Order: sequence, then C-alpha cells, then structure tokens
Amino acid sequence: MSNPFVVVGGDAAGLSAASKCKREDPGREVIVFERGQWVSYAHCGMPYYVKGDIDSLLDMTSLSPEEIEDRGIDLRRNHEVTGIDTDQQYVTYNTRVGKTVRQSYGDLLVATGASASVPFEGQDLDGAFTLHHMDSAAAIRAYLTDPADDPGIDAEFVDDALVEQYAAMEPPETVAVVGGGYVGVEMAEAFEAHDLDIHLFQRGERVLKPFGEAVGTAVGDRLEERGVTLHLDEEVDHLDGDDHVEAVVTDAHRVPVDCALVGVGITPNTDIVSGTEVRLGESGAILVDDYGRTDAERVYAAGDVAEMRHAVTGTHDWVPLGLTANRAGRAIGQTVAGDPEPVGDVAGTAVVKAFELECGRVGLLDHEKAREAGFEPVAETVTAGSRSGYYPGNEETTVHLVGDRTTGQLLGGAIVGEDRAAIRTDTLATAIEANMTVAELERLDLAYAPPFSPVWDPVLVAAKVLRGTLEE
Amino acid sequence: MSNPFVVVGGDAAGLSAASKCKREDPGREVIVFERGQWVSYAHCGMPYYVKGDIDSLLDMTSLSPEEIEDRGIDLRRNHEVTGIDTDQQYVTYNTRVGKTVRQSYGDLLVATGASASVPFEGQDLDGAFTLHHMDSAAAIRAYLTDPADDPGIDAEFVDDALVEQYAAMEPPETVAVVGGGYVGVEMAEAFEAHDLDIHLFQRGERVLKPFGEAVGTAVGDRLEERGVTLHLDEEVDHLDGDDHVEAVVTDAHRVPVDCALVGVGITPNTDIVSGTEVRLGESGAILVDDYGRTDAERVYAAGDVAEMRHAVTGTHDWVPLGLTANRAGRAIGQTVAGDPEPVGDVAGTAVVKAFELECGRVGLLDHEKAREAGFEPVAETVTAGSRSGYYPGNEETTVHLVGDRTTGQLLGGAIVGEDRAAIRTDTLATAIEANMTVAELERLDLAYAPPFSPVWDPVLVAAKVLRGTLEE
Repeated sequence: MSNPFVVVGGDAAGLSAASKCKREDPGREVIVFERGQWVSYAHCGMPYYVKGDIDSLLDMTSLSPEEIEDRGIDLRRNHEVTGIDTDQQYVTYNTRVGKTVRQSYGDLLVATGASASVPFEGQDLDGAFTLHHMDSAAAIRAYLTDPADDPGIDAEFVDDALVEQYAAMEPPETVAVVGGGYVGVEMAEAFEAHDLDIHLFQRGERVLKPFGEAVGTAVGDRLEERGVTLHLDEEVDHLDGDDHVEAVVTDAHRVPVDCALVGVGITPNTDIVSGTEVRLGESGAILVDDYGRTDAERVYAAGDVAEMRHAVTGTHDWVPLGLTANRAGRAIGQTVAGDPEPVGDVAGTAVVKAFELECGRVGLLDHEKAREAGFEPVAETVTAGSRSGYYPGNEETTVHLVGDRTTGQLLGGAIVGEDRAAIRTDTLATAIEANMTVAELERLDLAYAPPFSPVWDPVLVAAKVLRGTLEE
Repeated sequence: MSNPFVVVGGDAAGLSAASKCKREDPGREVIVFERGQWVSYAHCGMPYYVKGDIDSLLDMTSLSPEEIEDRGIDLRRNHEVTGIDTDQQYVTYNTRVGKTVRQSYGDLLVATGASASVPFEGQDLDGAFTLHHMDSAAAIRAYLTDPADDPGIDAEFVDDALVEQYAAMEPPETVAVVGGGYVGVEMAEAFEAHDLDIHLFQRGERVLKPFGEAVGTAVGDRLEERGVTLHLDEEVDHLDGDDHVEAVVTDAHRVPVDCALVGVGITPNTDIVSGTEVRLGESGAILVDDYGRTDAERVYAAGDVAEMRHAVTGTHDWVPLGLTANRAGRAIGQTVAGDPEPVGDVAGTAVVKAFELECGRVGLLDHEKAREAGFEPVAETVTAGSRSGYYPGNEETTVHLVGDRTTGQLLGGAIVGEDRAAIRTDTLATAIEANMTVAELERLDLAYAPPFSPVWDPVLVAAKVLRGTLEE
C-alpha cells in the first residue's frame, strides 16, 4: 500500500482517472485530494442553474462523495495539496489543524484545473462575481430570486453565509457582464431570464472571438435584440464602489450597475508544480506527452491545467474544455493501471448557446495562427437552410469554413443558426480529425430528409463554395 | 448544334446535370426530356404535404419550368423517350401527335428514376395509392380534406380529373399502409394527423428494416403508441374490392379498410436501355463507373436508375436517395462540360422521422452483408442522454454501432431518439467515409455543451462500448 495513485483535484479529469484506474486495477490504492467541498461538478451547467433551467446544484454533480467512495477511492475533500517533491515522490498537504503532512505516491496526476483571472481592481467588492465555483452560482441565484420561494438553493455543500448574505440583499436591477466569451454570453441569457438590465463589456470588436466573425456578429446582433447593451471595443479599467459594486469604469465610460459578473479568462492552477521538474508549455499550462506524462517521472497532468496536442497544427495548445478533461483523465487512469492509452488530441471543438442561437467552432479559424502553423488559409462563409425550404422550422444556418490553399485540407469551421446548428459542428470535427480535404468534405454522403436537412446540408454547400475558391 | 447534351428525366439527377453543364459550358446545347408534367420536385416532401405541414405542391418544386428555361436549358415536358441507339447516338421519343422522332446526342444522361412496384393485385382499384407521383399526393390530400377549405390543392400541374374524383368522395376513416419502410412510416404519421384508423402491414418482423433492430423496434413501439395497428410478419396477398378498395387480404387475415397506401418498394426505370450496350448491375439498376459512365460510349446514368459505389464495401450497390441523385447529376454535368468530376460514393446514409422520433442509419448494419464483404462484424447498442442529464430536454438516444473484429474499422451505425438524433448520423457517415476505426471514433473531439450534448456524446459512449467488445 505504499504505491498509491494520487490525484490532486476532484473534478472531471481527476475523478475520471481515479475511477478508471480503480476499475482496471481494483487492488491499487487511489487517493483523491480536493481542496474544496465540491467534487465531480459540471462547470458548464452553472449559467443554466442561475437562469433557473436547472432546479438544484446537486443535479449538476455526476457523482456524490459517497458514490466515489463506493468505488473504493479514498476521497479527501477540503485537503489542499501545497507542494510536490518529484524526487522523493510525495505530495505535501495541510490538515485542518494546520499540520503539514506528506503523502507518497507511485503515480501522481495533477488535475488542479484553472481559476478565473481578473486583471483589474474591484473584484473583491460585494456584488462582483466570477463563475468558477458552485458557491458563486448559488450566491448569484440567491441574489436574483427570493430564496424562500426557490428550491434551487441547496442547503448541502453551499457556503451558507455567502448565500444568506446575498439572499438578504435587494435583488439587482442592472448587471455588468464583463467579457463576451462563453461565460459572458451564457450569463447574459441567464440574467435576461431574470429581467435584468444588462451591459456587456467586450475588449475586442466582437463577442465569442474564438468562433470568428460570422458567429460573433450573429450572436452580438441577437444579444442586442434581446435587450443587452453591448459595449464593444471597450476595456474595463475597474469596478467601482465602497463595499458593493456601484459602477463599471472603462477606458471610455462609467456605467452605474448593481452588480457585475466577470468572465474574462482563466489561468491554469500550476502553483503546486513550480520548482519541480514538471515543465510548463508556452501557454502557461503543463506540458504533457501523448499519454499525459509530464517531464517528471510518474507525474501526469490532465484537464484545464494541462496542454493537449492540437489535431490540425500537431503542436501543443491549451484548450481547457470538459470532454478533453474527462477523456484525458480516463486515459491516464488506464495507463497508470498498466494498459497505456493515449489521451487523444483536441480539435478545438466548442459549442455554445446564445438565446435561440446554436453556435459551434472547430479547428483553426484564425488566419494568423493558420499561417504560423504553415498553412495558407482561405475562407468562405455561406448561409443555407437547415431543412428543406418548404418544411416548417427551416432556419438560416451560416457556415464558415477555412481550408489550406496548397493541400486543400480542411482547417477549421464555425456554424451558427437556430436549428440543429451546434451539433453539425461534429461533422466538421470528424472531418478535421480525419485530415479530410474540403473536396472530400463536399463529397460526404450526409443525411437528407426534409425535417432534418435539405438535400445539400449547409456544411456541404459551404464545402462546395470553398472548394471552388480553393481551386481558382 | 449537332452535339447536344441530352438528359432523359427532369428531376434531381437530370436537372442537376443539365444546370451544371450549362453553367460550365454555356455554349453547349442541353435538352431535357421529361415524360410527365412535373419537374424538379421533392419526392421526400410528399408525406408532409399529405399530412398538411406543407401548404402547396408547388412549394416542393425547387425550380419552375420557366426557371429551367431561363438557364438556357431546352426543357421538353410530356415527352417520353422510348428508346436509345447507342451506335448512332440518338434517342427516339413520341410526339403528342403520335409521331416517333429522333434526337441525336453528343452525350446522354439516363436519369429516368424509379417507379413504385406493387407485387400484388388490386392496386388498380380506386382508393389504392402509391406515393411516387405528385398527382397521387394531391389526390390523397383531396380525399382526406375538404378541398373547398384546403389551399393545398394546386390547380396548376395537377391531374384535375383525379383530384376532383377523390375530392367528391366521402373521406376515408380507415387506411391500410402496406410496407413499413420510409414511405410507410412517414405516411402513417400523415394519416394519423387526419385522425384515420391506420393498419400497417409489414412482411418482416420489424418496420424500417434497413435501420436495424434498435431503430425498428423503437419506431414500431412509437407507431403503436400513436394508435397504429401493426400487422408484422404478415404478407399482403391482394387488395380486395369491386371498384374501390374494401379490404386488405393477407396470408392471415382480411382487414376491411376504406383505402390503401402501398409503399413496398421501387424498381429502377431501365426499360429504355434494354437492348443497348448499357449494362445493368446485380441490383437491376444501371452499372456505372466512378464518373457515372455506363458501358455505352458517351452514355451516363445517375439517380434512382443507377448504382453507386458503396464507401464501406467498395462494390456497387443500389441506394436510391436524393442527395446521391443530385450529387451524381451535378458531377456528370461537370464531366460532360469537360472538367471530369467523380460522382462520389455512397455510405448508405438515410434518416427518417417517425412522429417525434428521429432515426438515422449509415454503412453496413446487416451482419450477413458485412460477412459477404469480407468483414467479421461485431455490434453493440447503447442508450445514453442527448444532453447533460440535468439540462431540460435531455432525451434517451440509442446508438447501434457495427465494427470489424479484425481491423477495428467502423462499418455502420444507426441512431434513434427525439433530440437531434438524426443529424448525429452525419458524424458516423463522416467517420465511415474516412475509414475510421471504432477507436478513432471514440477519441473524436466532439462538441459538448449542456443544451446540445453531454460530455460524452451518445456516439462516443457507443464507440467506447464497442471498442471494449472488439478488443476482448
């Protein structure tokens, strides 16, 4: 029992690894350290919990602590690992009574995730939130609703004091959403459902920058249609207020608001590996090989704290998303159990809902990045119907595709529309991971039936147009 | 002007070819013969027209005769081509005054489609329909509704006498649907919308046989839930009646009905090539090469009358579907214009709606066919959520996958569920056309966001399970 598989972090990557290892090698001791109360919870569901689409925070956890322990995993919540000794192969952590204790490991997985980063002042004011903890989500919901009437404020696991503090406050009427990424767009929808007056601040010229112009423009328009005031090309300088947020101060304006939700970026939690042999990549996340191994012997990393190989560029990149974390964790659990399994690569697939709009992106969309990777990018954007034109529910679907002039290879794509647009991204993801050319994409035998797709699916129409341009 | 591109058949394949050729080579004379009135119409929309989801037959034509002529195409409706001389390179057709006339060709495309085949007696009775003509659809709708109130009975193009005949009849209360394929399932939905008492007769043990057991069982259950009486494993012997259909007589029963819709199969319209060098494949449809060329010089075939190469088996097969027809026609138009373009292959992708259920299939599902093609098929069926479990609208999605034991290659798949199930078939179609293994499918970076997909898409869950079985 002196050769345990030790996992630092009790969310997607960590628990996938722990579970898989225990299943494949039931005799192996598996210990999971989690610094907080919450384990195995769904970050991605939080905006919908705040919106009110999901009844309870507990609904968003896929495994309870008891279920994890039933799997034979030694789960230690509220245990913060503070350091790693990769020579002697142990981690140090603090006990509740302040003692520092060592735990040796046979294999170690660093799955410490990422934290919201806020590059300006005022985030410590009351009414200023990020959305990187379940407790924040509970506090925001308590703030927006009358907790007496809201069964969605769970007693268990929640930071009671925080929730009660916000429940006691007058509900806000105006909110600043700082950042127009996934979190910003999803939270705008959530706040709109509570009838707040919403100001969204975005440093760049469009929301959802990684989705490119076609999607970003469509989503920006939709946000405005739904009453969101967009402040584009406007950088937030600080949040202003005495105890509570009173205004957002930008490089151009001072906009009075009752509260603020800041989602401007996250940074990988790499503190515990600093000073060790574990090396970071250019992105600042941990560098790993095809099996999730770091530069330190028997130390793995996965999830939001680690880089992954990009399917198009072949180089390592930081793409912190849920499936990646689950898949890499699971693969490492299998590897540690003696049956090596690659963690796979990422195609940069991402989808997001913006009110009725479904948005997706995959691969390389940014021409500059494409050129850096040695491609000569050419792009086309087309709009076509999601179903046969005569069939009810047909919706305009915009597809943006990027291909390489020299080889014809499909490099990336983005889709936006109201009818099954997001899930069509999977077709592009599959084609990209298969290294298909745009011509091959055009020739795919995709599904056709009037209720689901026109004869030429929007993806095929876009491929046809881009292929024409590539062959000019 | 003695070198025209002559097309026989004015629907998907024929008009795609004519349009593409004219666009690429505007100086070329292009003549399209169509034996009927209707051109460029959507077979696949007819059940929804009968149901009442689509207002007008005209909505289902993608091009009017005028638009076709505006493209510079010489469109000759009501001209039936009766023979081809592949030595002298001309076709013969009958004029309205009964003269037989020759038209020489430089290139010829046979795009004569397929016709409903009915292997039993009684189909000539009133009240017995197939759904292979727009006029039938108009007659059925006139029969079901009060034409005075129904704007969906278009005056133009329709066989007035037939429509008036059915409009004058008492609307039916009971209908027999003979055949449980696409048409049968879609028409059951259409008749249910008009509150008919429906008896569906299927020779085999399940409906939608090409979709396999998982889909067929789910759809059969759904039909019964919606009040359809299923007569499975029951072969229709004939339709009984004096002038009008009075009953369906099977090998087991006599079921009184007011009318019957027969959709038991179609046969390719190959009559005009008999006695020529044009050769038929084993399926009875015209054999073509990768460019749609038949064995006769300068004679092409495309659409429901022609075979196509199957992406999985590599051999030729008859898969008469809309996208195939459009794509092959377009490619042949380009080839004829001097820029050779392969017609592509088929993956056997098909989707169908059965009330709320979305169904899809692709590739090889039948184990016997897979073994004939040299594979050792292994299959798994899993049911998983379409969205995150906590997100509203999450629906059970059943995915059936078939892989090859020896190589791990993905051979086929089928999907059924209520939430975006059909469009997920495109992911499998893309993977199959890319010759992916089941392990590669499992590692795909597919889209995840709570409103659209769980972390592990049902396709990935099925791939994971099948991969486990393949590696046993």
